[in-house]
Amino acid sequence: MLSNTRSLRIEWGDCDPAGIMFYPRYFAMFDHCTAMLITAATGMSKAELMKAYDFAGYPLVNTQAKFILPTRFGDDVDIVSRFERVGRSSLDIRHQISRHGRLAVDALETRAWVVCDPGDRSRIRSHPVPDDLAALFRGEDVPQRAPEAVAAPTA
Amino acid sequence: MLSNTRSLRIEWGDCDPAGIMFYPRYFAMFDHCTAMLITAATGMSKAELMKAYDFAGYPLVNTQAKFILPTRFGDDVDIVSRFERVGRSSLDIRHQISRHGRLAVDALETRAWVVCDPGDRSRIRSHPVPDDLAALFRGEDVPQRAPEAVAAPTA
Amino acid sequence: MLSNTRSLRIEWGDCDPAGIMFYPRYFAMFDHCTAMLITAATGMSKAELMKAYDFAGYPLVNTQAKFILPTRFGDDVDIVSRFERVGRSSLDIRHQISRHGRLAVDALETRAWVVCDPGDRSRIRSHPVPDDLAALFRGEDVPQRAPEAVAAPTA
Amino acid sequence: MLSNTRSLRIEWGDCDPAGIMFYPRYFAMFDHCTAMLITAATGMSKAELMKAYDFAGYPLVNTQAKFILPTRFGDDVDIVSRFERVGRSSLDIRHQISRHGRLAVDALETRAWVVCDPGDRSRIRSHPVPDDLAALFRGEDVPQRAPEAVAAPTA
Repeated sequence: MLSNTRSLRIEWGDCDPAGIMFYPRYFAMFDHCTAMLITAATGMSKAELMKAYDFAGYPLVNTQAKFILPTRFGDDVDIVSRFERVGRSSLDIRHQISRHGRLAVDALETRAWVVCDPGDRSRIRSHPVPDDLAALFRGEDVPQRAPEAVAAPTA
Repeated sequence: MLSNTRSLRIEWGDCDPAGIMFYPRYFAMFDHCTAMLITAATGMSKAELMKAYDFAGYPLVNTQAKFILPTRFGDDVDIVSRFERVGRSSLDIRHQISRHGRLAVDALETRAWVVCDPGDRSRIRSHPVPDDLAALFRGEDVPQRAPEAVAAPTA
Repeated sequence: MLSNTRSLRIEWGDCDPAGIMFYPRYFAMFDHCTAMLITAATGMSKAELMKAYDFAGYPLVNTQAKFILPTRFGDDVDIVSRFERVGRSSLDIRHQISRHGRLAVDALETRAWVVCDPGDRSRIRSHPVPDDLAALFRGEDVPQRAPEAVAAPTA
Repeated sequence: MLSNTRSLRIEWGDCDPAGIMFYPRYFAMFDHCTAMLITAATGMSKAELMKAYDFAGYPLVNTQAKFILPTRFGDDVDIVSRFERVGRSSLDIRHQISRHGRLAVDALETRAWVVCDPGDRSRIRSHPVPDDLAALFRGEDVPQRAPEAVAAPTA
């Protein structure tokens, strides 16, 4: 399974009066980490992917997070994000934040692949992850006949 | 011109490591204060208004803000929002935050009334504020012939 | 165990390009819901409580959340927050968001009661929840001899 | 005067239901851009600087911003930040966001240099910008005798 690492500095505006990261901000970071992981797998930004494939996003359906060590304003951290499971119409992704090599936050999220409901464009419904994308998420060698399948949706 | 007052307590998560409001959060509050002011004028929530009238929002085009006194975690504040000018296709709205009766923040914003570009629904363009809404924003007595105009879009 | 209900309208700025709540914002709401629940139990705001008792907050150590139904810009929701467990130095709190009576989000969080490390005021460490507060969180009748204990820290 | 350029991609979670940047998020970006500009001038992160010099931050006292073009989810933008004026105890900083070479947002902010009030550490008050830092902000050649002055506070 693929992984992606993002390094960043904890910003003043991310922290609370105790000087530590206000935890909802971790989830905003994770959301973008997931987009970066998918970009690492597909070579397309989320915006490009949403134009290339007819889907409406991958909203969260479940998350579990352990906050082991606080991170503070000015800390430099690494976030490693990886696919843990690529299901038929859902994805499990793990995000681990380390500070100076020590695990600070360990989060596992399940996301659903969704499309707009054709009967009501303001509604979304679950949909299988396209096969070519699922193969890329799993880090599989794309089979011989796949290149056109991968390329087609971007055309 | 109409005004609306909102009372709230500064939350832990709104404040920075200095224990004072992280100023971008003021603008998030003002954005919702503008929605509340428009609801006070029209009797419709922003969501209802966007269904009733074919427009795409009222994005900010200009803002000026003075931060006179800091507000802190736990402070109870009042935000008074009022229309300062109702133009053909733009609105000036003032937001003033007071803490214990003393002015803490004074902000003036200009917003444009926009609709989706019919040629490209992903683009927006400026559009006159509907007459009936403009009259309500000004707090004018709605003229005799207007009621149907006001009522129609909500039907 | 005590509970507290908060009613609010999903704001424009809480929602993402799909028009649904950007999920990290739920956690910011939950953080304030926890503060409101503790205020409901103690009659003190978080700021007053931190002055009255020598503690440094109640950071999150664990959370699990299920996102069952999306909430959308303009939706009116209720958030019911309740203590699930009051431990020696930690608290379990459940937050449930309903929209039109249907459960939309179900989240369980564990928080640690912490104090500043006397050896290094920039560090925090776990500490037992004060007995009088724990009794209030459990919704127990405060025993006869407790009033002074409750009252003392606010003096 | 010094400048610093930051390139970033507009994230899904930065955008509102219209698919454009929710404008308060610009100010959160600017706040970090100011920290990055000061780091570019001094070689120290904000956290290092606050340890090296006895000050409590540089809160905003005034801002003016023009939103000329919207930026959208997935857009790659550049933010150029520069000192416009280095006053005795305040700083003017301009932030300009460009998308594909076209100016999208133009913001000017005034910040006050503040220290903790010695009589009440929870209060802040205005204070002159340290001379060595002011010289670095102005991009002046640091005079011959300055190195110790620059180095001393970090010792």
